[in-house]
Amino acid sequence: MADLKRKENHMENFTFYSPTFFAFGKETEKDAGKYVKKFGGSKVLLHYGGKSAEKSGLLDRVKKSLEEEGIDYIALGGVKPNPRSGLVYEGIELCREEGVDFVLAVGGGSVIDSSKAIAAGTVYDGDFWDFYQGKRIEEALPVGTILTISAAGSEGSPDSVITKEEGMFKRGASGDAIRPKFSILNPELTQTLPAYQTAAGATDIMAHLYERYITNSTEVEVTDRLIEALLLTMKYEAPRVIADPNNYQARANIMWAGMMAHNHSCGVGRSQDWNSHTIEHELSALYDCAHGAGLAVTMPAVFRYVMKHNVMRFAQVAVRVWGCEMNFENPEVTALEGIEAFQKFLISLGMPSNFEELGAKKEDIPKLVEVLCRGDGRDGTITGFVTLDEEDCTKIYEMMV
Amino acid sequence: MADLKRKENHMENFTFYSPTFFAFGKETEKDAGKYVKKFGGSKVLLHYGGKSAEKSGLLDRVKKSLEEEGIDYIALGGVKPNPRSGLVYEGIELCREEGVDFVLAVGGGSVIDSSKAIAAGTVYDGDFWDFYQGKRIEEALPVGTILTISAAGSEGSPDSVITKEEGMFKRGASGDAIRPKFSILNPELTQTLPAYQTAAGATDIMAHLYERYITNSTEVEVTDRLIEALLLTMKYEAPRVIADPNNYQARANIMWAGMMAHNHSCGVGRSQDWNSHTIEHELSALYDCAHGAGLAVTMPAVFRYVMKHNVMRFAQVAVRVWGCEMNFENPEVTALEGIEAFQKFLISLGMPSNFEELGAKKEDIPKLVEVLCRGDGRDGTITGFVTLDEEDCTKIYEMMV
Repeated sequence: MADLKRKENHMENFTFYSPTFFAFGKETEKDAGKYVKKFGGSKVLLHYGGKSAEKSGLLDRVKKSLEEEGIDYIALGGVKPNPRSGLVYEGIELCREEGVDFVLAVGGGSVIDSSKAIAAGTVYDGDFWDFYQGKRIEEALPVGTILTISAAGSEGSPDSVITKEEGMFKRGASGDAIRPKFSILNPELTQTLPAYQTAAGATDIMAHLYERYITNSTEVEVTDRLIEALLLTMKYEAPRVIADPNNYQARANIMWAGMMAHNHSCGVGRSQDWNSHTIEHELSALYDCAHGAGLAVTMPAVFRYVMKHNVMRFAQVAVRVWGCEMNFENPEVTALEGIEAFQKFLISLGMPSNFEELGAKKEDIPKLVEVLCRGDGRDGTITGFVTLDEEDCTKIYEMMV
Repeated sequence: MADLKRKENHMENFTFYSPTFFAFGKETEKDAGKYVKKFGGSKVLLHYGGKSAEKSGLLDRVKKSLEEEGIDYIALGGVKPNPRSGLVYEGIELCREEGVDFVLAVGGGSVIDSSKAIAAGTVYDGDFWDFYQGKRIEEALPVGTILTISAAGSEGSPDSVITKEEGMFKRGASGDAIRPKFSILNPELTQTLPAYQTAAGATDIMAHLYERYITNSTEVEVTDRLIEALLLTMKYEAPRVIADPNNYQARANIMWAGMMAHNHSCGVGRSQDWNSHTIEHELSALYDCAHGAGLAVTMPAVFRYVMKHNVMRFAQVAVRVWGCEMNFENPEVTALEGIEAFQKFLISLGMPSNFEELGAKKEDIPKLVEVLCRGDGRDGTITGFVTLDEEDCTKIYEMMV
């Protein structure tokens, strides 16, 4: 069972490095060719998802921009949400055969993560999956991105998440070598997204913030305040964009918040949680649901389960972000009110709140817990704000039913 | 006279690039040599200020770290607050004679700004002052920093401010080429600073935030919230560090806030003010007062003068940062309360509030206004949140008496 006692620790030493060049605003995708050239690309793998990039004309505009700079390219579409290892292997083969020297992602977090995996795998002798089992990525082809969904924060991060078809393991890899050289952020490109995807993206951004907020570090005022600032931004802007998908200003604020939430400037020097992400990954791997939708169901359950480990932390976010009044006689009431306010907020955006709405099944819980705690070399526990064992994880999944 | 009418404009297109590598925490200066090597330096100009870096043993530790990596260096000390062009010319000569290929700043904003000027001037054919008269810096020797004062934010910025002795013009230059390759941020190194310097540094950090906050842009929620987060951090941590100079946690939070306040991640896409800085620069140039102390006197006067241009902006910071209650019948009351709360806060840190405490003289006002509005090619006005002419600037200086 989880040990809910607290240990205190102050701000830790850290390094921070975020060398991505960001071009933000209307029509900035027209400069894609210019930026590929600036960062040394001459033969590009243009990696994207489905039909929307083709239909919207975005892909054509990007191709035109590359052609104007005399840059050669080959296109590889077909990236699906929760991107799979199969297409990564295909991309690696293609890059090697064609002598590709730059990977340009046109899409959301899935496309970017798939691009990063291809970029690392192309220059690696072994199986690229090694990186997703803990090997640090030290070398990769340069990657650029043209972002079409505000969500994953992959446009400014050194991370990538891929699902291995065999066993349906969803795992992450990391390394400065896969940080994008440039990322083009045009909020207009997100305006055609369906409301559900927009809401799932907003949930993912807020999850990146909560995972950093839920910490055992003490006296980390500056990062606490920065995280709260970005949560307040999402609280204000996400409903505005659901109400009016064409609200450029709201989309712009969300897009910058999404990058800042995950480039790590607001998470430095503090211990973090990430148990909600770990627990959710099994849901989106098994049911292929939107990662953000899975998080909307997972987070409130996890928070309620671990809350007593540090009631004041949950009371603080309740007061500062959700506007709850502090109950000084019983802070637990405030802490719970904050979790409820967050869940109601996610529901108001159109997100699911339980297994049924997500398409998950109660009878799968033993299987979910098995893969979560034992799969791919794990020792029966997952670790973050608290260490959770199989019994804990079973209870948490049951709370979502 | 200033036109106080408002024009609305939304978030603008922007680019953002912050490739500095930060090493943060205790004893990190021991890795100076390693980082110089990593970023290609083999012959270093070690640039610093006065005796404190020598006495504290910091300089010796840095030299030892360079020697351990087999890196050659020459030392040039003597940088004064409000750094002068004379020493910059000397540094440029020295770098050329000695074949220096890396400039390592050990000190606060003045040392870093002087280092940046030397780095740009060494590889430039003309007079380095050209850059401080508007020419963009496109090329420079690589610069690294070991920060000893949380204040200027120069450790993560592409900016430098130098005072030209002839005429005492204090002017700024800019360019990605002078962004530090690495910055070592050890909060312990700031613990020996006198309280007055610590407070002046905190004031400078808050000024960088206010200058970005005071905007004519609308619907810029994400950057508003980020600026407020950093102001709230300073409001909490600055008194803690004045009360206990050895409070590592408070110093650490302030140090990261100082970098984030000025690396521009919280100022993107919005118009800004900077009139307080421009008006203050003449004070520290003429009286050689601490820049932060000059800002403590200047800001409240400027804010009161321009407040009516957008009362709600000043009411917002009053409520969200200073905890004022909103006066819905008369928002101007709230706006003024926020300015007063800010000024009282600065006084509580030990900062001056008028000309006399600063060592400035009322009879110099005509001269200050002349240099401010007409010096070095200016057309009689300065521009920011509002455009101010000589009459406006005279009134503002008079408000400080």
